[in-house]
Amino acid sequence: MITLQDCQTRDAADPLKGMRELFTIPEGVIYLDGNSLGVMPSTAAARAAEVITQEWGVGLIRSWNTAGWFNLPQRLGNQIAPLIGAGKDEVVVTDTTSINLYKVLSAALNIAAQDAPHRRVIVSERNNFPTDLYIAEGLCKERGYTLKLVEPEEVAASLDQDLAVLMLTHVNYRTGAMHDMAAVTAAAHAAGALVVWDLAHSAGAVPVDLTGAKADFSIGCGYKYLNGGPGAPAFVWVNPQHADRFWQPLSGWWGHAAPFAFTPDYQPAPGITRYLCGTQPIVSLSLLECGLDIFAAAERLGGMAALRTKSLALTDLFIALVEQRCAGYGLGLATPRDHAQRGSQVCLTREYTPEGSGAFAIVQALIARGVIGDFRAGDGKAHKDILRFGFTPLYIGFEDVWNSVEHLRQVLESGEWKLPQFNQKHAVT
Amino acid sequence: MITLQDCQTRDAADPLKGMRELFTIPEGVIYLDGNSLGVMPSTAAARAAEVITQEWGVGLIRSWNTAGWFNLPQRLGNQIAPLIGAGKDEVVVTDTTSINLYKVLSAALNIAAQDAPHRRVIVSERNNFPTDLYIAEGLCKERGYTLKLVEPEEVAASLDQDLAVLMLTHVNYRTGAMHDMAAVTAAAHAAGALVVWDLAHSAGAVPVDLTGAKADFSIGCGYKYLNGGPGAPAFVWVNPQHADRFWQPLSGWWGHAAPFAFTPDYQPAPGITRYLCGTQPIVSLSLLECGLDIFAAAERLGGMAALRTKSLALTDLFIALVEQRCAGYGLGLATPRDHAQRGSQVCLTREYTPEGSGAFAIVQALIARGVIGDFRAGDGKAHKDILRFGFTPLYIGFEDVWNSVEHLRQVLESGEWKLPQFNQKHAVT
Repeated sequence: MITLQDCQTRDAADPLKGMRELFTIPEGVIYLDGNSLGVMPSTAAARAAEVITQEWGVGLIRSWNTAGWFNLPQRLGNQIAPLIGAGKDEVVVTDTTSINLYKVLSAALNIAAQDAPHRRVIVSERNNFPTDLYIAEGLCKERGYTLKLVEPEEVAASLDQDLAVLMLTHVNYRTGAMHDMAAVTAAAHAAGALVVWDLAHSAGAVPVDLTGAKADFSIGCGYKYLNGGPGAPAFVWVNPQHADRFWQPLSGWWGHAAPFAFTPDYQPAPGITRYLCGTQPIVSLSLLECGLDIFAAAERLGGMAALRTKSLALTDLFIALVEQRCAGYGLGLATPRDHAQRGSQVCLTREYTPEGSGAFAIVQALIARGVIGDFRAGDGKAHKDILRFGFTPLYIGFEDVWNSVEHLRQVLESGEWKLPQFNQKHAVT
Repeated sequence: MITLQDCQTRDAADPLKGMRELFTIPEGVIYLDGNSLGVMPSTAAARAAEVITQEWGVGLIRSWNTAGWFNLPQRLGNQIAPLIGAGKDEVVVTDTTSINLYKVLSAALNIAAQDAPHRRVIVSERNNFPTDLYIAEGLCKERGYTLKLVEPEEVAASLDQDLAVLMLTHVNYRTGAMHDMAAVTAAAHAAGALVVWDLAHSAGAVPVDLTGAKADFSIGCGYKYLNGGPGAPAFVWVNPQHADRFWQPLSGWWGHAAPFAFTPDYQPAPGITRYLCGTQPIVSLSLLECGLDIFAAAERLGGMAALRTKSLALTDLFIALVEQRCAGYGLGLATPRDHAQRGSQVCLTREYTPEGSGAFAIVQALIARGVIGDFRAGDGKAHKDILRFGFTPLYIGFEDVWNSVEHLRQVLESGEWKLPQFNQKHAVT
């Protein structure tokens, strides 16, 4: 039996415990939604004030030079690179995850069209993050490709002679299941296809080695585990062997080889810079650096390896405590128990009753108690509605895990989740 | 002869003179570059602090509902609509100008491909803002269209049976010359083509009536005359008659009809909402509202009509004073004298000598004196290098015009622009 005291002992021995002080988290909140929007680094407001009042207010247009705005996408990209196994000057931060996916998927299709024109299929997972599928759907429609959606266990069988691009999210948003990036990439390459990896739930959450896996293209999110702030710009990486082969179609001024020559014709910049397009939101972009600075500080305490060790300990503990203390309430586990297949989140399911699964209302009741996770609807079948809990080892401790399970137990035992106020859906869930 | 006292008298009588107090402008600066990056509304830092410390820091993921993040693109769009002659719920603020151009130009080509498939040409101006041409070039390459670039006086002759889309910037960034939106749109329609208008140098600068002109598509910039902050997200408008005909290709979650149903297939939202794509940079997006609030305040003092009257008075005054006080220094005028053809900026040229035009160095010498305009390089021929001065009637007064011309006169008379420090080019000019 695991006790509260065991959890406290583990917190006391945690080499990363000091990292939490670098964030400002509301009193009384246990925030298990860092996989959706990370918490605020304590430096964020001061950094924004500096960018706004000094760089914008005083520097004005001169700040493109004097405040380094012009190289900010590359500078931030170089801060992300070590977290994802990318080399120097191989990553830029810009635009949104969806738009960066459009860029890399377009480039991948250009390569496929040249190297293997008979390959006309993109494969992805049916439960991939929907916006990724929407972007792929749009591109397929535009270019005459077929988007084939499969279950995770069907990916291997889908690697056939029709496959142009395999587009996967490394850690699944609904289940927390993680692919073996190196093995899947190698299998896809052996089958003659290119691979695009979405790292939205990986960057800053689990160690990633794009270079080691010989991945082709990758994109990811700035506002989840990287704690860049709401809607922080996203990142994009392209394997250097592909970077100069094609322009991506969003050919804007910032991706031009000579953006201030103001020539009427487009000449793409070499390397990853051609994946830039228009003028970026400098205030939001600058805020991402506050989040990345914390990863630089964590590097001195063991970096992503240490974060991964703690993340697995947190998710193991959560699973064990839910099974120990919430048995008999119809909860199931959607996240793999195997460490090699688990991201940094735990997703629970709940059996259906004639009134539904209750998963939405349980999450709402937890939020009312300050335990913030989220709900993801299923297809109306048993064990498909998801209660999702993200564990970000930078600011979540072992006692937080104990307390969140204790709240879950109380919500289930008391039946308070059945109250009407927890059963009203919001515009955004 | 116009005197300093005349200018002071005009400032005293200016009904808009109080608007300047709503901005924070550095002491000693006369900012004539609001056409590139507008100045800071005084409320900006406090608004950012609220978004960061309260909406993000405390509200966290809940702020999608509680702070209205989810409807922010539409809410800001509705604040821009009256400035450009758009209806309610016809504008969204999102992404960048370049990316929004890609969306609307894609949609325009989709319509053309269906209604007039033999039309395979996009026409634009050779001196259109380069990023617009780069985006068009990329789309033409992708879809097999031809991009034909013409001089402004050749636009009318280009409206032939091959033309699919006429893509123009309403006010030219280099010269300040303005098209007659209604007449050009009517002529293009009569010739069977669609028209895309870029309002980067128009929105908040000159009155615009997209609905009255029966325009088809329009995009514009948040960080120039709208004073939204560096890289503030851009806006997009689509004539309601076209809005539901096609998806734009950047089909991301925020443009979905039911974004939180998380279905694997894309169903575009009705109307302009389908022009949204991925998660937006909420802090930068929120800051735009500070700039738009000032236009709402200006509305009570006569709005865009009053701003236009003052803008023309400022640019008339600048032209007159340059001609009165800076004669004999080789300056010319690139901006039309005709009010109907002038935006809110004045562009000067300078004759070439064997050492070049000196335009770059003159601009640098002015910046060192606190008069911030900018330089745009020509093609190395006489009267092509541009000294560009934007006049934003919200915060520029008549005495500012006097003083900026006086500085220009002194820079030319003293020859101080020949100093080495004014002749070094920066990374960003």
